[in-house]
Amino acid sequence: MAKTKGPRRPKAETPKGFRDYFGSEVTARKAMLDKIAGVYHRYGFDALETSAVETVEALGKFLPDVDRPNEGVFAWEEDSDWLALRYDLTAPLARVAAQYRNDLPTPYRRYAMGPVWRNEKPGPGRFRQFYQCDADTVGAASVAADAEICAMLSDALEAVGIERGDYVIRVNNRKVLNGVLVKVFGFDPSSNNIDDDIAALRTTLEKRDAILRTIDKFDKVGARGVLELLTIGRKDQSGALIDGVGLTDSQAQAVIDFLTCRGANNAITIKRLTESVGESGIGAEGIAELEDIASLLEAQGYGPDRIIIDPTVVRGLGYYTGPVFEAELTFEILDEKGRPRQFGSVAGGGRYDDLVKRFTGQSVPATGVSIGVDRLLAALAAKGRLDTTAQGPVVVTVMDRDRMADYMGMVNDLRAAGIRAEMYLGNPKNFGNQLKYADKRGSPIAIIQGGDEAAKGVVQIKDLILGAKIAQQATVEEWKSQPAQVEVGRDDLVRAVRDILDRHG
Amino acid sequence: MAKTKGPRRPKAETPKGFRDYFGSEVTARKAMLDKIAGVYHRYGFDALETSAVETVEALGKFLPDVDRPNEGVFAWEEDSDWLALRYDLTAPLARVAAQYRNDLPTPYRRYAMGPVWRNEKPGPGRFRQFYQCDADTVGAASVAADAEICAMLSDALEAVGIERGDYVIRVNNRKVLNGVLVKVFGFDPSSNNIDDDIAALRTTLEKRDAILRTIDKFDKVGARGVLELLTIGRKDQSGALIDGVGLTDSQAQAVIDFLTCRGANNAITIKRLTESVGESGIGAEGIAELEDIASLLEAQGYGPDRIIIDPTVVRGLGYYTGPVFEAELTFEILDEKGRPRQFGSVAGGGRYDDLVKRFTGQSVPATGVSIGVDRLLAALAAKGRLDTTAQGPVVVTVMDRDRMADYMGMVNDLRAAGIRAEMYLGNPKNFGNQLKYADKRGSPIAIIQGGDEAAKGVVQIKDLILGAKIAQQATVEEWKSQPAQVEVGRDDLVRAVRDILDRHG
Repeated sequence: MAKTKGPRRPKAETPKGFRDYFGSEVTARKAMLDKIAGVYHRYGFDALETSAVETVEALGKFLPDVDRPNEGVFAWEEDSDWLALRYDLTAPLARVAAQYRNDLPTPYRRYAMGPVWRNEKPGPGRFRQFYQCDADTVGAASVAADAEICAMLSDALEAVGIERGDYVIRVNNRKVLNGVLVKVFGFDPSSNNIDDDIAALRTTLEKRDAILRTIDKFDKVGARGVLELLTIGRKDQSGALIDGVGLTDSQAQAVIDFLTCRGANNAITIKRLTESVGESGIGAEGIAELEDIASLLEAQGYGPDRIIIDPTVVRGLGYYTGPVFEAELTFEILDEKGRPRQFGSVAGGGRYDDLVKRFTGQSVPATGVSIGVDRLLAALAAKGRLDTTAQGPVVVTVMDRDRMADYMGMVNDLRAAGIRAEMYLGNPKNFGNQLKYADKRGSPIAIIQGGDEAAKGVVQIKDLILGAKIAQQATVEEWKSQPAQVEVGRDDLVRAVRDILDRHG
Repeated sequence: MAKTKGPRRPKAETPKGFRDYFGSEVTARKAMLDKIAGVYHRYGFDALETSAVETVEALGKFLPDVDRPNEGVFAWEEDSDWLALRYDLTAPLARVAAQYRNDLPTPYRRYAMGPVWRNEKPGPGRFRQFYQCDADTVGAASVAADAEICAMLSDALEAVGIERGDYVIRVNNRKVLNGVLVKVFGFDPSSNNIDDDIAALRTTLEKRDAILRTIDKFDKVGARGVLELLTIGRKDQSGALIDGVGLTDSQAQAVIDFLTCRGANNAITIKRLTESVGESGIGAEGIAELEDIASLLEAQGYGPDRIIIDPTVVRGLGYYTGPVFEAELTFEILDEKGRPRQFGSVAGGGRYDDLVKRFTGQSVPATGVSIGVDRLLAALAAKGRLDTTAQGPVVVTVMDRDRMADYMGMVNDLRAAGIRAEMYLGNPKNFGNQLKYADKRGSPIAIIQGGDEAAKGVVQIKDLILGAKIAQQATVEEWKSQPAQVEVGRDDLVRAVRDILDRHG
């Protein structure tokens, strides 16, 4: 005999890699975005909001002839067009700068904030939708624009509560890196054919990534170990051979010299960088730009306590063409296993002079920064600097179903006075549930008026912040006997509630 | 000989039906959302932000066995799951209420604001991405929850600048409509089989839609014409026959009686409604609920000048089960052809007791409202009540490329004083372009310091609001001769700028 089955029910689940944000998670992020927007606005940047959906063609990360161009993005076909969710806020800006190029002011300075989507394998703390918060100047070739972005990033971090000394903005220049690569690999990325340059650069950058991963092991394996890994490889503790990157000894030494040439001040770093790039013209150009940026910033008081030249900054994205910058939090937090570790990068950006060119054929200089708001929130939370204890509403309890209008009247008076308040709207039968509800909401105060109080024209005002601990089991009578509870005339309700709220600050 | 072609360039275009929002379009909407969120918060609602992407299964508008379940939404397949962009904020709320049912407070009161996506044919003013701004109470069966939503909607409209008298919130109840349908069609939607009820209701509702479209022609064809159209049809002016809805004369009369029974006050309307539903139990229940809502609201001062019972409110969505409400703006605007017309609906909602049940099998009473923020913005703009003239930054012009640090210093001083300011970052060679830029940005003030001024330690401050009209052609020398231009010491820069800004309010 077959079992009788009901209709199949849908699963109540977020899709893999997505999550929901509740209450103060939403408002804390909003407060942060508002503060950053305030800084961006003060710097003269205008708001821009593009839609979440772009054509795959405009996003431009994909080949037009693959069947399902979904690598890295969420994409779908719509009436023979491929559409996709934006994966950052820079690609849509490049599209806007090209689409409205005759109408926008030059330079066009815009900020944008909102979610972006990445079709990547989700992991702990890694979600497929997250917020970015960008500011870019399109149409300004001067490194003064880059310097300004760095200063603005510094101001934005301080505006959201990262204290000076708890962060550093590290600035490098892709041109310097290219200069070093010329010297190390004998590779010149300044040919006349961009595709060739890019292919050659890609090979070199891939090698560079291997180099960087190796450098990262310095603490563990020491200078000798790193040299081995950069060249022929080495055996690890278990005796297994780890492949080397394949550089010659002198190449490996040049890389280490470059990556470790950050000095006690920018002048020393610049001097060492100059040695690192040797005869490379592009390298010299990059160093001159770094000097300009540093001196412009120092003149405005953005000294090495906030912004420094640091050759180890490389930034993953291939489209950067000049200065690159990265904001790093320098304080330690405890990881999930309780071990202290550096928090790391929370923002980054740089100059990308070729993104608009994709559309128009004309090179348009641009530079900008993107702040990873969710990481920044996590950092502030880890430092205990994020107030996530949003206060719940004053809850007017319902003792008598027939007097709903009376209770709504109380709520109405409180709201009219600007006090967050609500009447309990669940089933009022079990009074304990009403108090549990107030507790769960983080309510500071519960209002109680039974028949006796109504007859006398009074209300009971219960201070839940004081009374929180006994709230779970208390009966109504026990509650009334607490010292944290006061009886006031109905007309004094608003004043008495305000007094208690003020007392708790 | 084949022509040499460059690489094919992508089109710089928004996808069909999507648009970009610039500057004050973004900030005006944000200001409106902030005001509405303030009201929702004061009423005790908590923020919730779900992701843009849901499983098609959770959204629940589609059949699981169709190849491409994309009717109405943007959907795609991802690792054998169908995902889609949310089409409203209610479906994700139902998913959340089911997913976190053991953790959320009961009732769960949440607000949400953000874009939603509809895969519909775009039209003038109709976009595929638009904002909604919702508040819902899940887990409250009492009509006090519905009354509260209506009061909150009223407060929200006034908070964003819709004056009392310029809007009305019309309240009806699906149960009353069902009662009338019982009487008119002899149809009882209270069988024990929901699917049967829904199918029967759908047929009836489709007939009702035809009825409503007919009623809409009252002004044009008169009572007699409407009666003809509801029954056997009629000939229009050209002599062509328009099909009738097929009601009997008495059915048609009952419909007209119901739809026109709104009286001078709620008491009269209630009395007429009671006649309209006849013996129907469900109709009587609906009328009792309307009476409760009206009396609760009137007790708080939300009288018929703001909220009225109106039988013509039906709301399209099939999932409403009780009270439904709609906010309508009552002022006239001019349409694209210059004809005056009513602006119409800007918000709506109602009670939907079965949405969470899809997931859990248990009925969860819920009620809520959705404000169409983009329509509300359009209404305020049409009334001239939206300030879209966002002020541009003070622009510090660049007369001398070698003194960038000096100009940045001025900008820095202004920003430190909280004044929106920027240095001109384009090519400074053509000074006229700098002034055109300031003009295009809506800048109130330009700062000018050439070599002579620098030597004297002064700056020129140009009031662009006064000088706007001649800005386009003026040369530097002409500018300096304008009375709207003042020379002040470099140390007085901030004070002098502040004075001019204050003068313009």
